[in-house]
Amino acid sequence: MRFAKGHGTGNDFVILPDPDGELDLPDSLVARICDRHMGLGGDGVLRVVRTSAAVDQVPGDQAAEWFMDYRNADGSVAEMCGNGVRVFARYLLDEGLAAGPELAIATRAGLRLVRVAIDGQLTVDMGAAQVVGDGSVELGRQRYSGLAISVGNPHLACLVEEPVVGIDLSTPRLLEGNQAGDVNVEVLRITGEHQIEMRVHERGSGVTMSCGTGAVAAAVAAAVSAGDWQLGQDLPWTVDVPGGRLTVTPSATASLLTGPAEIVACGELAASWLAGLSPAGLSIG
Amino acid sequence: MRFAKGHGTGNDFVILPDPDGELDLPDSLVARICDRHMGLGGDGVLRVVRTSAAVDQVPGDQAAEWFMDYRNADGSVAEMCGNGVRVFARYLLDEGLAAGPELAIATRAGLRLVRVAIDGQLTVDMGAAQVVGDGSVELGRQRYSGLAISVGNPHLACLVEEPVVGIDLSTPRLLEGNQAGDVNVEVLRITGEHQIEMRVHERGSGVTMSCGTGAVAAAVAAAVSAGDWQLGQDLPWTVDVPGGRLTVTPSATASLLTGPAEIVACGELAASWLAGLSPAGLSIG
Repeated sequence: MRFAKGHGTGNDFVILPDPDGELDLPDSLVARICDRHMGLGGDGVLRVVRTSAAVDQVPGDQAAEWFMDYRNADGSVAEMCGNGVRVFARYLLDEGLAAGPELAIATRAGLRLVRVAIDGQLTVDMGAAQVVGDGSVELGRQRYSGLAISVGNPHLACLVEEPVVGIDLSTPRLLEGNQAGDVNVEVLRITGEHQIEMRVHERGSGVTMSCGTGAVAAAVAAAVSAGDWQLGQDLPWTVDVPGGRLTVTPSATASLLTGPAEIVACGELAASWLAGLSPAGLSIG
Repeated sequence: MRFAKGHGTGNDFVILPDPDGELDLPDSLVARICDRHMGLGGDGVLRVVRTSAAVDQVPGDQAAEWFMDYRNADGSVAEMCGNGVRVFARYLLDEGLAAGPELAIATRAGLRLVRVAIDGQLTVDMGAAQVVGDGSVELGRQRYSGLAISVGNPHLACLVEEPVVGIDLSTPRLLEGNQAGDVNVEVLRITGEHQIEMRVHERGSGVTMSCGTGAVAAAVAAAVSAGDWQLGQDLPWTVDVPGGRLTVTPSATASLLTGPAEIVACGELAASWLAGLSPAGLSIG
């Protein structure tokens, strides 16, 4: 089984080319591949399959040659990922499977257009963002107020005064708010003219190096604080995350996320490992 | 640059074949390769080089064709690794660069003999183990007594009654003892006849899935509790670690460590990634 590994601002993926949809990819195999010690390691798997070979999995009628079959590290299917779709596009471009400067990618969340710039940065339309209301959260015994924001998925973005690196995001505890269930929590600080730094706790994953929808939510909160949002002015924000630098133009109709993506390596999974033939012993896990 | 990735009981390594010693491998490149999000990811790098092509790095006169140039994830050189040397041997065997059932490997800690069994399990001589004295450590606000043990490097092995999975090993605090500096801390529990489970906090790395010298230290502590050690009886112990199952015959002269090792994948690092050409942006760390 061939693979590539790539990342976008530290959000990393194992890419599995499967043009004709022939791969048998049960959850357990995805989980083994994404295991960072006993497998290759990754935040998820991006299976690269022709849309025509995955008609049963592609919702609607999407005019794109390639479908991004995005799987979480535990094997469950996921709809979209702002960092993953850039890595997916970078792979298609590097392999000559698609041409720039604009390419369409079918996803479970619908068609996504990706634009590649001269400097290699990739821009993807992340859809509509919406301010839902207010909320607050306890982070490391301190209370923070924030804005509840929807970017398809729910976020609570908290504007803070101190450097975000010192804030304990390990176990956020929602105090109130008008969103049901767990949410992604961002802390952001204004660091310059239309520039912020932010860190994120992703529900289900914990603190990560980057989160595409989180970057959009943080930029919405920044735009609200600057008054741009209320005026309907869609202006770009530089968003520094632990894994690198993104640019976000938050919008009530079509937010844009720009950032890098790179392929680290490519190769082949060992047949003996795939077959699980090696004596692995018992685990006390 | 070609690579393979492999692991032994969850201790994972990027293997870099370099038979003629031509690779330029600065610390910074090792650290980038071992980065689990922006690189391939691993606990360390095993460079596979002919002893004759690395005479300036191989101490003494070691009668082995291959030298294991073992580097920690931060790029610093390391002497030996019980899990790493099995992965190294597995790679040589799989690639046909050496033949079993016994092969010699040159390391910075001296020549190591590795024996491969019919079932693929690999046994390596880990050298002498020594009981140094008593010590105690605070783990998650609870005090544990243990034995200070040297396996080339210093350990404090604490025999406990409860399942080891519930013990907080995140930040051990040494309370007393007769060893200077930081030590590796193990907790172990007798689970059957000559059988233990153990978890480890490695100095410099934190809680890991497996540690070869730690498994030896834990087996020494178990042998002491069983009275074998005092009688000089070198008997094998089954040692279950989070990453799998090891067998250890602890000894004051030549401890033996047996366990699995497997190659997960092989491939090539992307030239663009190696050149650092991709736009990675700034990081807020």
